[in-house]
Amino acid sequence: MRRVLVTGATGFLGARVLAPLQARGFEIHVAGRSPPKCQQVVFHQADILQAEQLRSAVQSARATHLLHLAWYAEPGQFWGSPLNLDWVSASLNLVRTFVETGGLRAVIAGTCAEYQWGPDRFYETESRCAPETLYGASKDALRRVLMAYADIAPLSLAWGRIFFLYGPGEKRGRLVSDAICALLSGAAFPTSHGLQRRDFMHVCDATSAFAALLDSDVTGPVNIGSGEAATLRSLLELIAEETGNAHCIEFGARPLSLKEPAIIEADIMRLSHEVKFQPKYNLREGLAEAVAWWRTEGNISGST
Amino acid sequence: MRRVLVTGATGFLGARVLAPLQARGFEIHVAGRSPPKCQQVVFHQADILQAEQLRSAVQSARATHLLHLAWYAEPGQFWGSPLNLDWVSASLNLVRTFVETGGLRAVIAGTCAEYQWGPDRFYETESRCAPETLYGASKDALRRVLMAYADIAPLSLAWGRIFFLYGPGEKRGRLVSDAICALLSGAAFPTSHGLQRRDFMHVCDATSAFAALLDSDVTGPVNIGSGEAATLRSLLELIAEETGNAHCIEFGARPLSLKEPAIIEADIMRLSHEVKFQPKYNLREGLAEAVAWWRTEGNISGST
Repeated sequence: MRRVLVTGATGFLGARVLAPLQARGFEIHVAGRSPPKCQQVVFHQADILQAEQLRSAVQSARATHLLHLAWYAEPGQFWGSPLNLDWVSASLNLVRTFVETGGLRAVIAGTCAEYQWGPDRFYETESRCAPETLYGASKDALRRVLMAYADIAPLSLAWGRIFFLYGPGEKRGRLVSDAICALLSGAAFPTSHGLQRRDFMHVCDATSAFAALLDSDVTGPVNIGSGEAATLRSLLELIAEETGNAHCIEFGARPLSLKEPAIIEADIMRLSHEVKFQPKYNLREGLAEAVAWWRTEGNISGST
Repeated sequence: MRRVLVTGATGFLGARVLAPLQARGFEIHVAGRSPPKCQQVVFHQADILQAEQLRSAVQSARATHLLHLAWYAEPGQFWGSPLNLDWVSASLNLVRTFVETGGLRAVIAGTCAEYQWGPDRFYETESRCAPETLYGASKDALRRVLMAYADIAPLSLAWGRIFFLYGPGEKRGRLVSDAICALLSGAAFPTSHGLQRRDFMHVCDATSAFAALLDSDVTGPVNIGSGEAATLRSLLELIAEETGNAHCIEFGARPLSLKEPAIIEADIMRLSHEVKFQPKYNLREGLAEAVAWWRTEGNISGST
């Protein structure tokens, strides 16, 4: 019996990962403050930042697999928050307790922000990690400790480096959700020149990729991205095709930070050849689905 | 008033750092399980691995400066122990609480084991960090998070990378202490060929260096070493000159691990030019002092 303990199961990614995990035959246990909406999971209530609560939850779950997605992720706040330090500690506690209760394989959410920004696409092994932000530095450091720990534990450990996600149900305060809401309501959307390229992946492709990665024996860092960066200009234009109100987009109205790199793009050879995962959505279809969700289920006037 | 909170004050390094800190005019507070032997310090009892106990101690101390030397250091065990993970978490908790209670400057003990072993001496900024061990990976990861945290805190943060220490009062289970005890008692001392070179520094030079570093405004990693690696063969021969019984040293009786690099040597330009610190001991004098200590105060027949 393969039992996975999932953290972050109420988040953007986590809420959508339970179905593909069930489809792969995992029995699902969840640790967190609030139960997920999904049926057929065993819920262990715990504030993950409270060491004793977390240990109790992990010990009750006695899982063979771990999928650790939880982290502080408040849009605009998470890059420089001291809470990143607490999440490093909580994650070390989580993985160590998981191993000590018999856990065998873990997959942990990393980030493209671990890489040193530069002009090239990012390769898991060749590209240098030298993060610009406290968030990136915290994930990078956590990975370094856990990879060394996995060697001696022993633990089969993979690290899924997430690039840019979008899709139905995304929080406000992020580019795609804010742009859709502005354009659907006819409000001005001031933005940068939009020539910088970013690797966007539909959240359901990302969750399927994480389920496939957990279900594999691939270890080490694996980029979770589409493999094709688009300019933000082309992405916003695709949104405008679905929403109308293209004139609301004010390109060039906001300066682009000097620290913003020209391109952030995943090489996905490991994901496609080793994990054998292929994304299903192209950007046009995925954005159309996100716009449809905001039309029918989203609160467009919600605060940004 | 400058008040320093010291951790690890009962350790090999920490027990000797209090005098040079007092000489520089610091009021000294100590956090730990047992009080230090030194007079004129304020002791805050706390198990540093217990988050709440540590926070209380730091909050009571309300120090302007922090010197964090405590870590799991059991000879032979510390390289691969899972306790390294707990010390990462405890150190994050320590530094964050220190900043939140008004702390301004911190110096933390790092290690030469953060560097990627190679044929050259190690430079703080140019040399690559890619540790071979869980201990090295944990210190390396901690530094990466804390340097990013220091930028936003803000905190003036220096990181003292310790090379090889020796001196009076060293624990058994380490090369210099075990060699001195074997040779003084006429017991066989089987060892490797001894041609590998290591940078040894007298513990009192290291403590003076840490006190000078804390008392400076130098930030980032700083090598704490002598700047001159000696072969282990020459080091053991110097010990034998003091103890007699040179015939007890059995060079070549133990294989050298393939992972052991030919040289581990600090470049000390930052220490000498920026911190303006100069070591006082040469190896011959320092080893003579260590041998004298074992003759008069050490328990030579103590377990290794």
